[in-house]
Amino acid sequence: MLRDRTRTALGAAAALALVTSAASAPVPKNLPRGVSEVLYEIVVPPGAEPTPEKVALGDKLFNEKRLSANDQVACATCHDPAKGFVDHKPLAEGIAAPAQRTQRNSPTVLNAMFNAAQFWDGRAPTLEEQAKLPILNPIEMGQKSPDDVVAKLRGISEYRSAFQQVFGHDLTYDDVAAAIAAFERTQYAGDAPFDRFVAGDEKAIDESAKRGWGLFNGKGRCNACHAFSTVSPLFSDQKFHNIGIAAHKTDFIDLARKATAIVRSGDLKQIDELAIQSNLSELGRFLVTKNSNDIGAFKTPGLRNVAVTSPYMHDGSLATLWDVMDHYNKGGVPNPNLDGGMQRLGLTEAEIDDMVSFMASLTSAKLGEFGKQEMARQQARKNVRPERDTAVATGKKGDLGDLAPTPDRAKPAAFGVLVRKGTSYD
Amino acid sequence: MLRDRTRTALGAAAALALVTSAASAPVPKNLPRGVSEVLYEIVVPPGAEPTPEKVALGDKLFNEKRLSANDQVACATCHDPAKGFVDHKPLAEGIAAPAQRTQRNSPTVLNAMFNAAQFWDGRAPTLEEQAKLPILNPIEMGQKSPDDVVAKLRGISEYRSAFQQVFGHDLTYDDVAAAIAAFERTQYAGDAPFDRFVAGDEKAIDESAKRGWGLFNGKGRCNACHAFSTVSPLFSDQKFHNIGIAAHKTDFIDLARKATAIVRSGDLKQIDELAIQSNLSELGRFLVTKNSNDIGAFKTPGLRNVAVTSPYMHDGSLATLWDVMDHYNKGGVPNPNLDGGMQRLGLTEAEIDDMVSFMASLTSAKLGEFGKQEMARQQARKNVRPERDTAVATGKKGDLGDLAPTPDRAKPAAFGVLVRKGTSYD
Repeated sequence: MLRDRTRTALGAAAALALVTSAASAPVPKNLPRGVSEVLYEIVVPPGAEPTPEKVALGDKLFNEKRLSANDQVACATCHDPAKGFVDHKPLAEGIAAPAQRTQRNSPTVLNAMFNAAQFWDGRAPTLEEQAKLPILNPIEMGQKSPDDVVAKLRGISEYRSAFQQVFGHDLTYDDVAAAIAAFERTQYAGDAPFDRFVAGDEKAIDESAKRGWGLFNGKGRCNACHAFSTVSPLFSDQKFHNIGIAAHKTDFIDLARKATAIVRSGDLKQIDELAIQSNLSELGRFLVTKNSNDIGAFKTPGLRNVAVTSPYMHDGSLATLWDVMDHYNKGGVPNPNLDGGMQRLGLTEAEIDDMVSFMASLTSAKLGEFGKQEMARQQARKNVRPERDTAVATGKKGDLGDLAPTPDRAKPAAFGVLVRKGTSYD
Repeated sequence: MLRDRTRTALGAAAALALVTSAASAPVPKNLPRGVSEVLYEIVVPPGAEPTPEKVALGDKLFNEKRLSANDQVACATCHDPAKGFVDHKPLAEGIAAPAQRTQRNSPTVLNAMFNAAQFWDGRAPTLEEQAKLPILNPIEMGQKSPDDVVAKLRGISEYRSAFQQVFGHDLTYDDVAAAIAAFERTQYAGDAPFDRFVAGDEKAIDESAKRGWGLFNGKGRCNACHAFSTVSPLFSDQKFHNIGIAAHKTDFIDLARKATAIVRSGDLKQIDELAIQSNLSELGRFLVTKNSNDIGAFKTPGLRNVAVTSPYMHDGSLATLWDVMDHYNKGGVPNPNLDGGMQRLGLTEAEIDDMVSFMASLTSAKLGEFGKQEMARQQARKNVRPERDTAVATGKKGDLGDLAPTPDRAKPAAFGVLVRKGTSYD
């Protein structure tokens, strides 16, 4: 009885603490520039805003290492709020690290609320479904089952009472996911120098960034996928593209045949484990859709705060924004499923610098100092350029099957045709 | 008893007829050039090939007007096998026509088996789910319920016995869909002059078409979405894009707010009726996903046999391939959700002719004569060009918010920014 009373008192104190902490993160009345009201209303319908208590509980859970099987890994371990909600490691590391790492780079939680689907391959349709999977993944947080998670949290009095207060019943696994998702729906990203520039402040970004914005929409073709509009200012088309990352080490056709035989479409748990732990991971979106045009395709990430979320790409294989530009400049890495939009760009070094300057102008004010540090760090290794291949980028070398920038017009049958052997054209 | 015997005899005869007719459409051993073996195996897994009997039953059902409530409309009414599986009408017409037409153009069944999702907005994940919806749509085939369809077909002895023979049980609505889908999985499209060209026959297409193929991959940027590879020779990225069709008459933001409030995600029947019968139809893929980047977005159709499937676009609003080229040449119609890949192309009239020649080279041999007739018909009205706007296409007029081909580099804040009013940049 005493024990129960103690627990109740502790629980009430914890609940109070949650409410107090929540007061500093209310649901926004005035969204910052660069956050679309239209999108916000779709994601957080009027009248369905999460309560501050639910958000605070989600915040606490997000940072809670006891959510993992060994009490060592929280959501925040890979999505560190102090680091732009990423871990700055190529591949995410959970309870099995360093012996076994995951196959995917940690994406930021910033603006994840606006993603059409979650994870690099979009395998989870909502933030809630996303939150449930890493907790149960054997090498990430390692819980055996939703029941195990619920039992563990119910054994912690502060959670028992906080969930009771927020949800009005004994906590469930759905509640855990709902609270984490509610917190994540407060993590929108706007208020960048670029947003002030679009609003009319011509001095908000420098001349190099302005040139970069022009290249972004023109010669660089970035806007074809990293679409920006004032209504949808995410810099993402929310689609999935094969841009030739890891393509040189992947036999996509062989992997696709294997995956076709074993993937149980709709079984998120199975697909999660294949994506995180197996070499089928490189198939990307194909694991979810079994659509051949999705082989090796990954989600177009938004570009806000890209300066603070290195390294880049689904496998964290590119260390800096200069590496990213080098990759695109040479038209990606040829493979039979390369997106049709990938072409050699023929960008000069000065143009690449301008485009990096533009991307750095997308850092939210609250991350401004960190962004400057990160860009200085990347700038310092600007001369280490493993992806740079100027001869290919300028069309002097390499058979990419494309036209740009210097096609051999005497051989039109080769345009866009990378492979003939082993196909119906053999 | 006599009546029963008569029915049985009729049924057996019908079943025999089905088997006989099926012999002329066996499952293919050698796919023609331009049909990918990899894709075929994904869509029709080895060992799961439909039987000739099932295909023949599906063929018969596809042409069966009694599938509709008033015995007047078959699948083939809008998807006429003799006309490239379309109806050559801007908007499909069912039992409610001419009083009420649908809101969508009939897409071809040719190569539909390879579509990642069915319908212009991808609302059906499979051919089977697709087949079920028009039968039940109030203005297309008008059946009240699956039970009504089943009862009607069970009352027709030839179907009763044919289904019994093919499926081994009394017919169900799922069986109806399965048979139609089995037939549709025999309707692959290849064997076009372009396929012989890629295989090495330099004379298979003329010089104009060769120039067009170059433009397709280069200045025209078509391949960014209408992707071709020898492994995936569909000329479609299987994605959804807003290219500004009907945008001038649509307040997308207002429609999106309305749709967000009423659409029950996952309710295919409701979404089908909104897409076919309501003015929310123009929202396209958004009705399925509620993802703002899908507002006004429709599926990239494959381009095989495009010469015989006029008119074009989801609403059939473009009569000829020249109109289509005019639309793209001016960068589509500006709207806040226009795909980032849409840019003014600055194509000359001669270049447009070349690109049409290329598209005409994608007609399958079995439709070759029809293709020539259709192209002659389109050519004859080549001077009627409602979509042509050379001043916009060449950048001399119009504010598309893009860069190509003659941006005002003194105003970079306007690049890619179409709307400021009513957004967080106001």
